Amino acid sequence: MPEHLIAPERGTHRVEAFSDAFFAIVITLLILDLRLPEHVSDENLTDVLIEMWPVWLAYVISFINIYILWVSHHELMRISPRADTSFLYLNGALLLGIGVMPFSTAVLADHIDDQGAQIAAALYTGAFVWVALGFNLLWRHLSARPERLLATVSRADRRRISRTYAATLGLYILAFALAWLLPWASVVITLVLAVFFAVVDRLSGFASEDVADDAP
Amino acid sequence: MPEHLIAPERGTHRVEAFSDAFFAIVITLLILDLRLPEHVSDENLTDVLIEMWPVWLAYVISFINIYILWVSHHELMRISPRADTSFLYLNGALLLGIGVMPFSTAVLADHIDDQGAQIAAALYTGAFVWVALGFNLLWRHLSARPERLLATVSRADRRRISRTYAATLGLYILAFALAWLLPWASVVITLVLAVFFAVVDRLSGFASEDVADDAP
Amino acid sequence: MPEHLIAPERGTHRVEAFSDAFFAIVITLLILDLRLPEHVSDENLTDVLIEMWPVWLAYVISFINIYILWVSHHELMRISPRADTSFLYLNGALLLGIGVMPFSTAVLADHIDDQGAQIAAALYTGAFVWVALGFNLLWRHLSARPERLLATVSRADRRRISRTYAATLGLYILAFALAWLLPWASVVITLVLAVFFAVVDRLSGFASEDVADDAP
Amino acid sequence: MPEHLIAPERGTHRVEAFSDAFFAIVITLLILDLRLPEHVSDENLTDVLIEMWPVWLAYVISFINIYILWVSHHELMRISPRADTSFLYLNGALLLGIGVMPFSTAVLADHIDDQGAQIAAALYTGAFVWVALGFNLLWRHLSARPERLLATVSRADRRRISRTYAATLGLYILAFALAWLLPWASVVITLVLAVFFAVVDRLSGFASEDVADDAP
Repeated sequence: MPEHLIAPERGTHRVEAFSDAFFAIVITLLILDLRLPEHVSDENLTDVLIEMWPVWLAYVISFINIYILWVSHHELMRISPRADTSFLYLNGALLLGIGVMPFSTAVLADHIDDQGAQIAAALYTGAFVWVALGFNLLWRHLSARPERLLATVSRADRRRISRTYAATLGLYILAFALAWLLPWASVVITLVLAVFFAVVDRLSGFASEDVADDAP
Repeated sequence: MPEHLIAPERGTHRVEAFSDAFFAIVITLLILDLRLPEHVSDENLTDVLIEMWPVWLAYVISFINIYILWVSHHELMRISPRADTSFLYLNGALLLGIGVMPFSTAVLADHIDDQGAQIAAALYTGAFVWVALGFNLLWRHLSARPERLLATVSRADRRRISRTYAATLGLYILAFALAWLLPWASVVITLVLAVFFAVVDRLSGFASEDVADDAP
Repeated sequence: MPEHLIAPERGTHRVEAFSDAFFAIVITLLILDLRLPEHVSDENLTDVLIEMWPVWLAYVISFINIYILWVSHHELMRISPRADTSFLYLNGALLLGIGVMPFSTAVLADHIDDQGAQIAAALYTGAFVWVALGFNLLWRHLSARPERLLATVSRADRRRISRTYAATLGLYILAFALAWLLPWASVVITLVLAVFFAVVDRLSGFASEDVADDAP
Repeated sequence: MPEHLIAPERGTHRVEAFSDAFFAIVITLLILDLRLPEHVSDENLTDVLIEMWPVWLAYVISFINIYILWVSHHELMRISPRADTSFLYLNGALLLGIGVMPFSTAVLADHIDDQGAQIAAALYTGAFVWVALGFNLLWRHLSARPERLLATVSRADRRRISRTYAATLGLYILAFALAWLLPWASVVITLVLAVFFAVVDRLSGFASEDVADDAP
């Protein structure tokens, strides 16, 4: 639809609603892999639950990873007043990568402790590379024109966010490369990155309050 | 409910929320077909992932197709200030076709390279014909009365949108017919159409800015 | 939470969002039964798709039924300005019945043409009896106090809605009873009822416009 | 994102939307366990449906439990004007526990009447301990600073809510301990607790109306 037809107050509402539902479904589909093998005999339920540890671990790691990605997505939308059509398509590309994660998590859980570990970890970290690329493209689009961001976002904020996103992409690419050498380590890196990103993001938030007078 | 009972500001909010959730779930259910066959031996995980190429390809094609349909739906709602009951039912008919897509995608992925390719492609493209029909009926309903569209929508805009929707329906019918001759080609056409529609939509948006003074 | 703590403008927003997501997921889970049997040989895909007719039919019937239930739910919320806690729990009871429908639909599709048809149809129609009961209780709660409905809802409107809801419950009970004699017929009745309800609702809407001066 | 960048009116909207979708999906995934065993012969459908009673019972218990948790979540959000980043992460921890529930419900339904009952009940009640812990941490965060709650929340309200949340956590821990002795009883306790919590919440709501002049 031509932009001029659209009431401005209908900014990012529906793309947020769609993305929220999408993230919520993806994170919930992880649970579908938490599934007992058929015909568990009655006595050894505890053993089975314990032997499922890679499935549990993969569930928790992916849950945390995807949840933090959602928080990042959420916070990025929060500083953008409206969603133009390019925004919608870049967001779609990003979600395509998120959508693969329940599958890559399942493959990881099944193969991390056998000879398929390398390809499983590469698939897993590869999805993160894709998503980080999506975030970078989305951010580049948003920051290209001042009216695409809230007026409260200063030039220093923009530089800082650009740096964080670029660094994140670089580190995910490193994790992807590492998947071929140390599969488990590469997966743990995605988790460390997510948590680090969450913490750093808050710290840099406090930091930038000092430079907030830089804002227009 | 009789129309006069309803506060006007409760316009399209819930039908959008429902539709957004619906599109998000359908697009996510595509992932459920990304599933390793049972008992993949450890060494050949890479081979299995590569041999799954029709599943990957069908996932990506359907993801893009459904996402662009959602964008179209989203943009159509954006120019309509309220949802009457007819609107709700026409929207339901449209969603019925969207809902079939994870199934038709799965059938396509399983049979595109065997003798079932024709019927699989016909089922796949047939769902798009249904949805395009739904969009046309919905648009016809919305454009029948001026108060069903935002005042910013000019007569030229209406003509242009009518033309685009009608052309899209015609092209999907062509794709459906082609399914019996060249199954793969017909599926690729749905993708080309979606991308073309997305691009054309934006171009025509820019174009119509020149005629925006035509608006009431 | 005590009612006095809550800002009034946060009326029915979240219960609507939750219910919308719930209906959307339930209606989408219907698709999970649209599934090819394993190892379909390549030549007879068409036959398999045709032999699946009870699954297709059950999908379409349940889709229409659940969608119209959602529309009814949506329109009922529309005339209620806020959701108190009783409202939330009655809504939950109603949704419990909706949640069973993908299962009862699957049982119906599997057994409508064999000796399990009676129990399958009873399960299917029984879920509708439950939901209709839920709608009646919800409506009784809403109409018990004037401030629970928009001021636009006149006494005549209330009487009309009470009558429609009571009649619907009675007819679903009849369908349930009929399930033991004519399974298919009882299922078709749920569909006829839904469509009739949708049409009657609109007609009575127009009718009540004549008595709108009755409104406070 | 640094807090100062964010428009205040974008308070809790998206975290509510995400949580609503999450709860709705989890509660709907319960249905996926309502599934006929393969190859039910035609005559004994009734018997099969009756023999599935632990599945039915587990479905109903978990539905009620999760729905009441959603109501609690909903009502907690209602008295909080905005969601900071800590809020988002604590909410994520809470949802992680909710997400396990379809799995723990399925394990319960499969093993409650065999020798795995103890571990199944411990897993089931354990998820509630986790979620109750999440609610307590979330509440502690919200009540630590006055501006994180609506001004209508009085000191008496805060004390009362703190007490209810602490008691709930204690009782879930008791249920978890009991799982090893009386598995069924521990599960029933979660249900009693949920219903009791719902009722007590309303009663204490009425009670606190008497002390409402305590509010700032």
